[in-house]
Amino acid sequence: MDAISIIRTKRDGGTLSPEQIDWIIDAYTRGAVAHEQMAALAMAIVINGMDREEIARWTAAKIASGERMDFSGLSRPTVDKHSTGGVGDKITLPLAPLVAACGAAVPQLSGRGLGHTGGTLDKLESIPGWRADLDNEEMLDILDRVGAVICAAGPGLAPADRKLYALRDVTGTVESIPLIAASIMSKKIAEGTDSLVLDVKVGSGAFMKNLDDARELASTMVGLGTDHGVRTVALLTDMSVPLGLTAGNALEVREAVEVLAGGGPADVVELTVALAREMLTAAGLPDADPERALADGSAMDVWRRMISAQGGDPDAPLPTARETHTVTAPTTGTLLGLDAYDVGLVAWRLGAGRARKEDAVQAGAGVEWHARPGDRVTAGAPLLTLHTDTPERFPRALEALENGAVTIGEPEDGVDPVRPLILGRVD
Amino acid sequence: MDAISIIRTKRDGGTLSPEQIDWIIDAYTRGAVAHEQMAALAMAIVINGMDREEIARWTAAKIASGERMDFSGLSRPTVDKHSTGGVGDKITLPLAPLVAACGAAVPQLSGRGLGHTGGTLDKLESIPGWRADLDNEEMLDILDRVGAVICAAGPGLAPADRKLYALRDVTGTVESIPLIAASIMSKKIAEGTDSLVLDVKVGSGAFMKNLDDARELASTMVGLGTDHGVRTVALLTDMSVPLGLTAGNALEVREAVEVLAGGGPADVVELTVALAREMLTAAGLPDADPERALADGSAMDVWRRMISAQGGDPDAPLPTARETHTVTAPTTGTLLGLDAYDVGLVAWRLGAGRARKEDAVQAGAGVEWHARPGDRVTAGAPLLTLHTDTPERFPRALEALENGAVTIGEPEDGVDPVRPLILGRVD
Repeated sequence: MDAISIIRTKRDGGTLSPEQIDWIIDAYTRGAVAHEQMAALAMAIVINGMDREEIARWTAAKIASGERMDFSGLSRPTVDKHSTGGVGDKITLPLAPLVAACGAAVPQLSGRGLGHTGGTLDKLESIPGWRADLDNEEMLDILDRVGAVICAAGPGLAPADRKLYALRDVTGTVESIPLIAASIMSKKIAEGTDSLVLDVKVGSGAFMKNLDDARELASTMVGLGTDHGVRTVALLTDMSVPLGLTAGNALEVREAVEVLAGGGPADVVELTVALAREMLTAAGLPDADPERALADGSAMDVWRRMISAQGGDPDAPLPTARETHTVTAPTTGTLLGLDAYDVGLVAWRLGAGRARKEDAVQAGAGVEWHARPGDRVTAGAPLLTLHTDTPERFPRALEALENGAVTIGEPEDGVDPVRPLILGRVD
Repeated sequence: MDAISIIRTKRDGGTLSPEQIDWIIDAYTRGAVAHEQMAALAMAIVINGMDREEIARWTAAKIASGERMDFSGLSRPTVDKHSTGGVGDKITLPLAPLVAACGAAVPQLSGRGLGHTGGTLDKLESIPGWRADLDNEEMLDILDRVGAVICAAGPGLAPADRKLYALRDVTGTVESIPLIAASIMSKKIAEGTDSLVLDVKVGSGAFMKNLDDARELASTMVGLGTDHGVRTVALLTDMSVPLGLTAGNALEVREAVEVLAGGGPADVVELTVALAREMLTAAGLPDADPERALADGSAMDVWRRMISAQGGDPDAPLPTARETHTVTAPTTGTLLGLDAYDVGLVAWRLGAGRARKEDAVQAGAGVEWHARPGDRVTAGAPLLTLHTDTPERFPRALEALENGAVTIGEPEDGVDPVRPLILGRVD
């Protein structure tokens, strides 16, 4: 076995053998295969693809590169959710405590944001005192006592994936359904959950720009989960419009808390409840009632205990940005479109996201929008509010709105400007 | 400009702009673009190609990464030759002094062998005392006094190419006509020669396995040379059979000296003279007579002065290997085929070549064959002699002969087992 012959196989459109995949994943993790060799192989995979068997082996080899957690000692069934990432996607925040309030255990390993989509850990870190890094014992203890935990994946889980993901990020090799599916599923399977619900985003603000690609990714991931004994189901959901009314760290925590308090934007509530139902069904609790757990405050109770258990103060005021800038509607009419990617870019440029892994994010930065597609807007009335601690960022952020991010007009006959949120289901 | 957007452009089948090419070659040379990023881009180029304009700019950017030599102060016209590499290809050794003896100046920058093809510098280093590394002043001085110099390229010539070539070597990204053409021509153009003759090899022992690919490579390189003001012509020559009767370092020097003495294998003489005529014509000396310069000893005189000028002793006995092993013909008949790649592999495994850049080569190791296609062979008579200082290498070397390296039989009616050596010409 040697790296060059494996790279050549894929470069020339061939199929990697199970032995080749096991060898290169192991050798790369150990440092015996160099970053530049893996980068060349990753590019060959992006362009020439991998078949189902190659993807399955690639995923299995990454799981085998580290430890696999075990929650079998818990009294409750475990279920986890993964979103492929979108703008304003704060769903994990209300969802994990909601599902725990309904009787399942939610061991939610999450990540940080890179590029125009935010990261769940960045959002939660805007809560004073809250910390993302737990060791396995702390995680298990919180899961057992509270029923839900949201934390960073430890370095022992799928280390091959951690290394490869960082490499893909700097080498233009992220956009590949086989590599995305293997990356997500190796982490989630190593995490040891009994069942898993995937939220595969489709639209301008998502990795997958069209429904066919999203369905292929979903079906690949569901197959990988099932093969490894994890009950897996996927919803395909719209990400052409950002979720809710905010994108940013503390801004999104505030919105999540509104949902847990029984309010919040309708689309965030709809998706939270739909995913909760899927998770509870996958966990063997099909009769649980997530809407009631939102209404009666039991989901909020779990949230408060979960935040406290990780050092956070659920009653502390959330940070706010030092400066705001209001964008008003240029004309009166119906808001027909609000582009998810452009809004994500605004939030990112305001300081809510990071350009490089080592960058810090601003807790208060981000963007609020005061209308969603289908709402009436009035010329001169506030349409968006931009938040940042560093007002020199406003001009660059505003540039992201210049290319048709906002569309105002009158809806054509028979065309509903409100798009359906849930576009499909794969199991 | 950033590396990732450039990588993505080529990954997605797009065309790189002149500015993108200039930027990434410069940034890679300076270390601002990482090896893994260039590896991903190189793989995207291998798979998705580059058009003529991209190749031209890629070449120009590599030339601009370093110094360009200037021989305009010489009284003679300069002409250089480059072979794309083959087995038993010792042509540079008699050719450079021969062309110098006919009136041109030959500033021949050469390389070391990697893989199954040998390197001119490795061959010359088997001459006691001879050294490959000269500074620019020494090189110019020898060129002026002797008329020919064969030495290593200094670190100042096309440093971007040096760095990229080492990267491609370990990342499975060598096999690309655009990248091969740009690599060869950036070095040759930076070297400052007035004119250039390319020997593009075709067949099992060459990079280019078929005539169409070889013609495309030749035509790409001729175009690049012409665009940079270097008169460039290419011969397409057979490399399905190894050249001459030896592959190895000292073994090939011995054969080259035989040619300079007016003898040597017919194919080596034929190709040496054909390339000399092309070089002399390109240098504006179409009436020179290379055959006479071989016959009258004037080429040999230049050889002796050239070797002496670089510290070598042209009269010293050449090193020989400590052990030999004879392979006899299994049957009586006509030798129909002798596979260049397999013979190259035998020589390499005996210690004539290196697996990694830092390996040493054995001066005496290699292989002699006692018949060429078309010759009669007799069962039990010596067919090949293997030479090495390390006899434990014999078994692995002999394995390379097991897959049809040697074919003995009777020629079919109308099929000449002797293939033509010169297959085409591109100018």
